[in-house]
Amino acid sequence: MTTRERRRRVTIADVARHAGVSTTAVSKVLRNAYGVSAAMRDRVKAAIDELGYRPHASARAMRGRTYTIGVLLPDLRNPFFPEILDGLYEQLDGTGYQVIIVLGGRDAKAETRAIDALVDRQVDGMLMVAPRVPRTRLEEVGGQLPTVVLGPHEKSALYDAVLDDDEIGAELVVRHLISLGHRRIAHIGHRENAGRRTAAMLQTIRAVTYERVMREHGLDDEIAMAMTTYSEEGGYEGARELLARSPRPTAIFAGADLAAFGALTALHEAGLAVPADVSLAGYDNTRTAALSDISLTSVDQDGGVMGGTAGRLLLERIEGRTSSVTFSVTPTLVPRRSTAPPPAETRTA
Amino acid sequence: MTTRERRRRVTIADVARHAGVSTTAVSKVLRNAYGVSAAMRDRVKAAIDELGYRPHASARAMRGRTYTIGVLLPDLRNPFFPEILDGLYEQLDGTGYQVIIVLGGRDAKAETRAIDALVDRQVDGMLMVAPRVPRTRLEEVGGQLPTVVLGPHEKSALYDAVLDDDEIGAELVVRHLISLGHRRIAHIGHRENAGRRTAAMLQTIRAVTYERVMREHGLDDEIAMAMTTYSEEGGYEGARELLARSPRPTAIFAGADLAAFGALTALHEAGLAVPADVSLAGYDNTRTAALSDISLTSVDQDGGVMGGTAGRLLLERIEGRTSSVTFSVTPTLVPRRSTAPPPAETRTA
Repeated sequence: MTTRERRRRVTIADVARHAGVSTTAVSKVLRNAYGVSAAMRDRVKAAIDELGYRPHASARAMRGRTYTIGVLLPDLRNPFFPEILDGLYEQLDGTGYQVIIVLGGRDAKAETRAIDALVDRQVDGMLMVAPRVPRTRLEEVGGQLPTVVLGPHEKSALYDAVLDDDEIGAELVVRHLISLGHRRIAHIGHRENAGRRTAAMLQTIRAVTYERVMREHGLDDEIAMAMTTYSEEGGYEGARELLARSPRPTAIFAGADLAAFGALTALHEAGLAVPADVSLAGYDNTRTAALSDISLTSVDQDGGVMGGTAGRLLLERIEGRTSSVTFSVTPTLVPRRSTAPPPAETRTA
Repeated sequence: MTTRERRRRVTIADVARHAGVSTTAVSKVLRNAYGVSAAMRDRVKAAIDELGYRPHASARAMRGRTYTIGVLLPDLRNPFFPEILDGLYEQLDGTGYQVIIVLGGRDAKAETRAIDALVDRQVDGMLMVAPRVPRTRLEEVGGQLPTVVLGPHEKSALYDAVLDDDEIGAELVVRHLISLGHRRIAHIGHRENAGRRTAAMLQTIRAVTYERVMREHGLDDEIAMAMTTYSEEGGYEGARELLARSPRPTAIFAGADLAAFGALTALHEAGLAVPADVSLAGYDNTRTAALSDISLTSVDQDGGVMGGTAGRLLLERIEGRTSSVTFSVTPTLVPRRSTAPPPAETRTA
């Protein structure tokens, strides 16, 4: 049996020697400290890669660091999350930090345990993506270790916030549909029973903005919402509910691409063509939305930038920043073939 | 600032009292031991859920357990992985075990570090999905802690193996295309430089089986392979390479759905219709493949069963089993609209 002990561990001194720099310089690169030149960083990174250097976790734990970043994701199915992770990994590349991920699972209770598991494993920092636990729990974690929360529109003195301007995003979609000539525009939303935090959640903001823009265009009577979940199943159910209305909507704005994919199935089952009979738009601009057979109009919120920023903010907090910051990404509309003017008969109605 | 210490920790005794059973019974349920009735399990699980019981990690670490299972995934983009995770979570539900995930990243070196991060965080067991590190490294991990490897077709005395019978799966696809009348059937594969392990890797088995079945049907001269990667980009490049041939293939078997989605884009760009001009099949039977606008013929290998089995095997090993087992899932073909007989002119050619 091979044991790990047989391998001699590569030390920071080995890395310094290999790179031809001081151990202090290596340490600076590992901490992602200021005042390190790009050339120095490249040299040290190359040495770390070549030697397979790995900071000694227990030694680190003794002096208070494990060089791990914990990430909470709601699930693995939403294709927006890999975009966030890509940005995070890129930001952490060469810093020696490893990312460990837990999934929130089916409810806030399961999510609480998943978060606890990360805290128990002594991560140095925590990124919580679209968390469902109460704000008090987020602040509890933020009070214990460097924390960034991605998604909800709420600020705290105890953690940093990275968010998409969901109000602008939802407005772009609804205005786009109205400008194409649609009036009966319906919305598929995500209902989460999260008490007082509800107003700050991105799904609420998308739904509320849909209603506001409809009203601003005198379309109060056309407001139709199916509140299910941001999932394929939720989109399928939501679309079925909306299509059962008479007259049926000529356009559907699903609050997430994943829900739009489920809506597509419901539309096909109902014998309706997209966009000839019903226009469809999503949110997240996932890769599937871009597939030519899907060609879904969507909102791009640049997950890579969001994830990268979250990583940078975590490193800053680990280095000692205690003030809280909020970073907001302005989304853009990506119009594709799934949205077009409504059928002729509805335009004259 | 709220601190965690203020919350009184729920103990195993609280759970026992709440469920009206002995602490031994609770402990048995937590360990997923044999001889626990379904009714007992349900009662204890309900009490655990209601009280929010969480085993004390440091107490556990002292007696040798952290009640965490580490999972290595190559990435978050392959929609087959969530299926595996679903099965694993279901199996671990109510056992008190938490799952923490790391991503393998861009190469075997990055993957080694991700695995090390899990080992350093003292997980009780490890599930490695489609790992790229050398077999020696897998055995090193298997020698240190309970380990299950999912994907590669290789057995070891030091870990359990859960695999799909990729030979049967690939055979199903190629025979299906041949039975539809295709002769010029091409394959998009995944090339990984993994030294001697290559032959055991699922991508190699799928490619080799494609070649074998083609030969068995006298189609030696029609064999055409583009070896890229199991990704959208890889599928796109692979299809472009194959479509540049003259005469071009009438059917493409992509070794993974993800690659098939990339191939779809290339086919559309080339002005070719699926299946009228070119039939297309994938592997993994992902949810995207089932979307009605995609409707991709694929192979279902039941990721849920694979993940659930991996979880069961890990719990058994944690409980003391040291003998190695291999579990193989027999896949099935899911024919959809992306495959059909070749265009008439090629049939008479």
